[in-house]
Amino acid sequence: MTVVPELEPTTGDAGDRRPPTAAGKVLAVLDAFGPQHRALSLSEISRRAGLTLPTAHRLVRELLGWGALERDDEGRYSVGLRLLELSALAPRGLELREAAFPHAQDLHQITGGNVHLGVRDGIEVVYVEAIRARARNPVSSRVGDRWPMHVTGTGLVLLAFAEPELQEQVLNSPLERFTPLTVVDPTALRGKLDQVRRTGVAVARGQITLPDVVVAVPVHNPRGEVIAALSVVVAAEDARPRELTALLTQASRSISRALDPAQRLPTPSSPQR
Amino acid sequence: MTVVPELEPTTGDAGDRRPPTAAGKVLAVLDAFGPQHRALSLSEISRRAGLTLPTAHRLVRELLGWGALERDDEGRYSVGLRLLELSALAPRGLELREAAFPHAQDLHQITGGNVHLGVRDGIEVVYVEAIRARARNPVSSRVGDRWPMHVTGTGLVLLAFAEPELQEQVLNSPLERFTPLTVVDPTALRGKLDQVRRTGVAVARGQITLPDVVVAVPVHNPRGEVIAALSVVVAAEDARPRELTALLTQASRSISRALDPAQRLPTPSSPQR
Repeated sequence: MTVVPELEPTTGDAGDRRPPTAAGKVLAVLDAFGPQHRALSLSEISRRAGLTLPTAHRLVRELLGWGALERDDEGRYSVGLRLLELSALAPRGLELREAAFPHAQDLHQITGGNVHLGVRDGIEVVYVEAIRARARNPVSSRVGDRWPMHVTGTGLVLLAFAEPELQEQVLNSPLERFTPLTVVDPTALRGKLDQVRRTGVAVARGQITLPDVVVAVPVHNPRGEVIAALSVVVAAEDARPRELTALLTQASRSISRALDPAQRLPTPSSPQR
Repeated sequence: MTVVPELEPTTGDAGDRRPPTAAGKVLAVLDAFGPQHRALSLSEISRRAGLTLPTAHRLVRELLGWGALERDDEGRYSVGLRLLELSALAPRGLELREAAFPHAQDLHQITGGNVHLGVRDGIEVVYVEAIRARARNPVSSRVGDRWPMHVTGTGLVLLAFAEPELQEQVLNSPLERFTPLTVVDPTALRGKLDQVRRTGVAVARGQITLPDVVVAVPVHNPRGEVIAALSVVVAAEDARPRELTALLTQASRSISRALDPAQRLPTPSSPQR
């Protein structure tokens, strides 16, 4: 007897061939949403989640009641505010974002470029802060965006300072090409990572879109561990990597200081503002 | 025969007395986390979610694999980056935040106060943007924070412009008191809402903490509907409500313009930055 399971949701368990659990089905509904799929009809959710229409309907109703999803005037569903509220509790998101915010903003104003603060999640980088220049956005760069590490400045820094096993895992995985300049050769990438470790900065040109240059530096926690990376993306013709490196290094140190309770300025009893 | 169900999670279905569904249990695990409970042990999750330890363990493992939760070095769980990624897809979060960001930042720099951008969710207000003055934070004001409408500037504005049924629902619900100045009398609150509608601005003193004054204005979408509220919180001795109102009104108009595709400046082919 052949049991044909419903299409499996991505649960992060590669190679897991069991039919989805009840929790897996809930997560599959959430997985149906993405940057290209921000608003979905019930049947689109059902199809993308690999669930029958009645199952999708039941789960969507529960998620709607809880606030994980919202329904617009046209009956399409999108991600709800309850998830925004929950995500603000993510320690790697919130504390970092708060410590980095004024410095990222300064960087953005001084350089006119897009500023990203990225952390590693598995073999990818996720932006926990992203400040975009209004006049230019050929590439999505938003909070929550997830990119392969080898194509982003923040990713190159995080990869260079990751444990060797993780580096090998990435170097041995298929490396996606976005432009003719994207480094997808493992040996070349290994050399690039060596350079990042040696100089403490990643400079890369045209890895995702041709006209862009990114400069990125590590952000350390008070124990000296690399916990995030900070980058500025500017148009190639405006790029002054040495100047950007100096600005980024200064910002990174300020963020580390802001993360260190011992180095925080005491709160004045009569706050100066 | 009496069936004793497990403690019910909050699903938004008030009065629902059925035992939790599988989806409800997943959501109960997520509900266990909150501003005062950012990192939880497995047994704390089990207790707070009202689930048996084996059930909590199984669900936590699934949520961990998917990225909704993360585990720290001490074995405590917290909200994971996958939820940050998902929440960035919330249309009422992202689009508004992006349109508002530069204007909220300007307001913060000019006034030195905390700036909030709030939207209504049910009978509460949720901050989709929050910029805090570094020297002062007696009150949490973070992205994702959720407050009763009657005590916040943004909430008063959103309530004043909400449909009458919703206003009655709030006015007839228990109104929490935070300070001796908090308006908790329905008649007084009704008068306050009238005033907000008449003047287009909410000014409130000491509703959450005594020394604070908040000034808030509505933010309209291109169709003229109130979709959010923008506020500045400053110390009472620094408060110049008329000046703050002028600044907020200007910022609110700029945000509305940024939300209107028809009024956006054309993207230059050679971007000026």
